[in-house]
Amino acid sequence: MSDSPALKYECLVKDATTHARLGRVTTVHGSFDTPAFMPVGTQGSVKGIMPDDLGELGAQIILGNTYHLMLRPGSELVAKMGGLQKWTTWGKPMLTDSGGFQVFSLSDANKITEDGVVFKSHLNGARIELTPERSMQVQNELGADIMMAFDDCPPAAQRDASEGQSTSGSGLTRHAIEQEKYHKRLKLACERSNRWLGRCVKAHARKSEQSLFGIIQGGIDLEQRKWCVDEVCSHDLPGYAIGGVAVGEGFEQLKRVVEYTAPLMPSDKPRYLMGVGYERDILTAVQAGVDMFDCVLPTRNARNANAFTPTGQMRLRNAQFADDPRPIVEGCDCACCSRGYSRSYLRHMFMAGEMLGPILVTLHNLRHFQRFLLDIRTAIRDNDWSFVTERWPVACV
Amino acid sequence: MSDSPALKYECLVKDATTHARLGRVTTVHGSFDTPAFMPVGTQGSVKGIMPDDLGELGAQIILGNTYHLMLRPGSELVAKMGGLQKWTTWGKPMLTDSGGFQVFSLSDANKITEDGVVFKSHLNGARIELTPERSMQVQNELGADIMMAFDDCPPAAQRDASEGQSTSGSGLTRHAIEQEKYHKRLKLACERSNRWLGRCVKAHARKSEQSLFGIIQGGIDLEQRKWCVDEVCSHDLPGYAIGGVAVGEGFEQLKRVVEYTAPLMPSDKPRYLMGVGYERDILTAVQAGVDMFDCVLPTRNARNANAFTPTGQMRLRNAQFADDPRPIVEGCDCACCSRGYSRSYLRHMFMAGEMLGPILVTLHNLRHFQRFLLDIRTAIRDNDWSFVTERWPVACV
Repeated sequence: MSDSPALKYECLVKDATTHARLGRVTTVHGSFDTPAFMPVGTQGSVKGIMPDDLGELGAQIILGNTYHLMLRPGSELVAKMGGLQKWTTWGKPMLTDSGGFQVFSLSDANKITEDGVVFKSHLNGARIELTPERSMQVQNELGADIMMAFDDCPPAAQRDASEGQSTSGSGLTRHAIEQEKYHKRLKLACERSNRWLGRCVKAHARKSEQSLFGIIQGGIDLEQRKWCVDEVCSHDLPGYAIGGVAVGEGFEQLKRVVEYTAPLMPSDKPRYLMGVGYERDILTAVQAGVDMFDCVLPTRNARNANAFTPTGQMRLRNAQFADDPRPIVEGCDCACCSRGYSRSYLRHMFMAGEMLGPILVTLHNLRHFQRFLLDIRTAIRDNDWSFVTERWPVACV
Repeated sequence: MSDSPALKYECLVKDATTHARLGRVTTVHGSFDTPAFMPVGTQGSVKGIMPDDLGELGAQIILGNTYHLMLRPGSELVAKMGGLQKWTTWGKPMLTDSGGFQVFSLSDANKITEDGVVFKSHLNGARIELTPERSMQVQNELGADIMMAFDDCPPAAQRDASEGQSTSGSGLTRHAIEQEKYHKRLKLACERSNRWLGRCVKAHARKSEQSLFGIIQGGIDLEQRKWCVDEVCSHDLPGYAIGGVAVGEGFEQLKRVVEYTAPLMPSDKPRYLMGVGYERDILTAVQAGVDMFDCVLPTRNARNANAFTPTGQMRLRNAQFADDPRPIVEGCDCACCSRGYSRSYLRHMFMAGEMLGPILVTLHNLRHFQRFLLDIRTAIRDNDWSFVTERWPVACV
């Protein structure tokens, strides 16, 4: 158990056979059970879903994206309206990222210096600067219970050659050069992120209400991961995250990195694996000792008519569903399946461009992930992983 | 009180001072109180709103559009899935229009003959024929509790000259020519619609489950309206509608036509004013003896960020609302206002293109209209119109 000014982590059950743990995190806006899955509400709403319905399907903490909210409506406005939790009517725990990931991936012409990043807004092209201090200021204004450190996100590693096509002699040389370039950039990013973390800790102005999590980078380089764990965890923070995975490295590398890194992190603080992921990724990470997850998969895929099921995804636009009277998943307790919406009706909603399609499948997909995490928590409590593996074949492929 | 095989109308209270009446219509799928406002679910969903929420906000009957549903997914499919009520999960009374209005207004290159209308699908350009018999077949397959007769919709009259700009001598001549042309086309449409009604009555194949309403046309020509009432009501149908209003003729003409026509219609059957309308239009029509209304105003305007209030519409995109912490209407019991969504948050949802904006304002606007009709029913019951006029200044302007 660990007590920070604005966050308490209790480990309730430690699994006997894996690093998994059942726990509870308490913030100023309430508690959430861990391992936890956090739906993503990029612009201040989980697209199409009312906060009441989010709570009913089991979500206890949701995300907001600093990058989007700082550009529109601006964090000063959110602060003036009482903070994200009140403004969105959600009222329960929230987490904001630092804005860094989006600056590196969404915005044009970003220029990185030791001071921070200069980028063009994807909305209107305005020149904007984001530094560790500015990210803290924005996140302090947004007011989420958990804030993330602003770090330098290195480009994703190429998939390891051993996982891909075999390469010719010259290919190998090119690969070696790329590897060296990658490691040089990675090392610079890790060292700079560590200096930036010091600036974040110093700039964070609401420590009694909001908790800053440090982020461990290091790509697929385990030595670099170890270096980051040591440096980042030398700051006594309320929690720590693993960043820079699920960026295209593949399941085996994700597993390798997470299984190596998570157990090195302090056991009395929550561990958060950013941007992950599929059911198999989550199960693997939970068993490596990770407590928190977020991912756009359930919401984004729902909007593309892809429904998650315990045996894999279902593409609801497929013609075979036109006259299928069954719910997405028989016996599912979500607001879509349990109220009798058929695959036939859902397919029509998507074919006709009706909002209700994305809404209903988002409710189903989010419940799918909450149900999965609920079953994982039950498995840890009862020390019985067959409870998960039998009910969720998709997590065991 | 009138009993048809699939519809019962009970008049519960007749207002002492106007033609208004409080009543109840009972169908195979349940009852609804009249005067009633029916939300429009064009393609099988009231855009963005779950049927459970529609019921909670007071809707007791909703519409589906035959034109859209016959093109996609096709009425055979809906029949196979158990009919519109079951397929949509709504389960309560529904009404379908005939498809005629959309054929005349939405589709290209429609060709009208005595047999019916040939048009090009707005989805894929396919050549499609709609006749009285085909409309009945499609509506029988969709399975709504109330079906509408397929009629020939004449073009809307120009606004009367006395209402518009004063015209010069030559303008008056042009006006006279247009008037003559309009009346000729109107008379043809009414006579043809009457012949088509006979074919509809004959073709309707599920009289014990679905009720066919006849439609009284006649534009702004009261003689023509009278002729139509006599002809249409010579068929003993479970209900009758006034069509061809709210097509640009203006409030004064709407009032004139409805106040003349409604009292001529059988008093033991429900009277339905199609496609109406604003609060003032509805109040006027109720006092002329109309029982049923449908309109896209609350839903369509919601998607354009226009919220209805008792004192008029509110444009939520306006910059003045950026930091306005108030709900759309203080004290409103809708799912948006009562749960604390602020004008500030709603404005952001629209500015950011988030689905939750249209959803929340649709919930508010639909509740606005249901609440308005509820108050109208209370006023009739208590014979106290001040109950409506004091609470709904927008209906009295």
